Amino acid sequence: MHTRTVFFVSDGTGITAETFGNAILAQFEFKPRHVRLPFIDSVDKAHQVVRQVNHTAEVEGRKPVVFTTLVNVEVLQVIEEGCKAMLLDMFGTFVRPLEIELGMKSSHRVGRFADVSKSQEYHDRIEAINYSLAHDDGQSNRDLEQADVILVGVSRSGKTPTSLYLAMQHGLKAANYPLIPEDFERRQLPAALTAQRQKIFGLSILPERLCEIRNERRPNSKYASLENCRMEVAEAEAMMRREGIRWLSTTTKSIEEIATTILQEIRPERLEY
Amino acid sequence: MHTRTVFFVSDGTGITAETFGNAILAQFEFKPRHVRLPFIDSVDKAHQVVRQVNHTAEVEGRKPVVFTTLVNVEVLQVIEEGCKAMLLDMFGTFVRPLEIELGMKSSHRVGRFADVSKSQEYHDRIEAINYSLAHDDGQSNRDLEQADVILVGVSRSGKTPTSLYLAMQHGLKAANYPLIPEDFERRQLPAALTAQRQKIFGLSILPERLCEIRNERRPNSKYASLENCRMEVAEAEAMMRREGIRWLSTTTKSIEEIATTILQEIRPERLEY
Repeated sequence: MHTRTVFFVSDGTGITAETFGNAILAQFEFKPRHVRLPFIDSVDKAHQVVRQVNHTAEVEGRKPVVFTTLVNVEVLQVIEEGCKAMLLDMFGTFVRPLEIELGMKSSHRVGRFADVSKSQEYHDRIEAINYSLAHDDGQSNRDLEQADVILVGVSRSGKTPTSLYLAMQHGLKAANYPLIPEDFERRQLPAALTAQRQKIFGLSILPERLCEIRNERRPNSKYASLENCRMEVAEAEAMMRREGIRWLSTTTKSIEEIATTILQEIRPERLEY
Repeated sequence: MHTRTVFFVSDGTGITAETFGNAILAQFEFKPRHVRLPFIDSVDKAHQVVRQVNHTAEVEGRKPVVFTTLVNVEVLQVIEEGCKAMLLDMFGTFVRPLEIELGMKSSHRVGRFADVSKSQEYHDRIEAINYSLAHDDGQSNRDLEQADVILVGVSRSGKTPTSLYLAMQHGLKAANYPLIPEDFERRQLPAALTAQRQKIFGLSILPERLCEIRNERRPNSKYASLENCRMEVAEAEAMMRREGIRWLSTTTKSIEEIATTILQEIRPERLEY
């Protein structure tokens, strides 16, 4: 049961408004209803927002909370003046002091994304996604010298989602290679990787957690058995230690936390740090 | 050449600090150097940040800008008191007024991600990524009734990155199917899709832009020729009109914008709106 509604109002996609709002809300132990209102880019749409917010306020008998990242001052004004709500306005709060410090006017440009078909950065990001997909799970050794990061680890240690996240959010070409029993027998990394040593980062995981994850996909298989998971993780960690590969345990970590740690360690040249 | 440095300081991954900071900075026509400082979760690390920020201030002869999303008040205090910089503090600014409005104390919990191995939401998100990968490019008709969204469109209209984004960011199971010459000849949607009509969303694109994108991958092929791109796009749009499928043009749109529009139109049941 929710007791209050939170609105995220933006003239763009609303991603910033939501990230901003959710980070603030995570500080409170309550479960509000979320309403996203993206693309509010005209005074007309602003008036519709006011009606919706005030209707909610009346029905619930509580002030809604409204997070805004509105750049257009006319749109913002309609919402500020009309909404019977608690308004938390990110741009109004921070852009003005920054104008003074920087000694320049803000551009009031809406959204982070202009025409993406003309953006090299966007182009590179899509290329990174394509690259990471083509190099998922050791599928291809082609163009491995182009990789920014190469993840290694046992099956289901988190390599695929992390690779896709690094590509999607950071525009990095992220390949990934499974460490498999054949590698453990040979006591060597997959041969294609030896020339790329400095880009390699390892993912490990607690055997007990790995066993849970594998059992969801192949219940009661040897592959998923705790005994086999223990063996594979021990072998993989021994190999990473032997080869001097940096690694982390993904057991309790989100994709975002894993990716942030990898970026801190690898510091790919293409990303400014 | 950058003329000023911007720091993003967080006790977690720093994703919120960066999203917040980049949205504000996008309002200004200047290219600062970016420095990310995630996982600043102790007073010791805070003192290191102060040293780094003040050193930069001295070298550059300008006040750095510091965006913070620090929850720990002791850490924040060290940075507030020590940094010779312009501090833009998201939590300090907004959490206090919200405490008053909600009549509750904030929890000062660091980061959005607790132990993810215990989170159903996180589990579902990883499942969604696996699902979307397995259902990329019409690879599989299995479990199609579980899809939240099914994207259709000609090859290279943006289906794959959009599907992965919907899975990664919104936890949606997003399948995608290419519309190919065989479908145009039969004048029918791929057979597997007819039972899932209400989940289908179409992506189209200007033939000129499609021709550019395809030429990067297969230069001077019939596949990439403007004539062929014109024919495929015309056929695909005619089919979507005939079948009553909602669609948008991806030509100038980012993945984020495409995904936001799809969510507004499809309003998947699993997402609260």
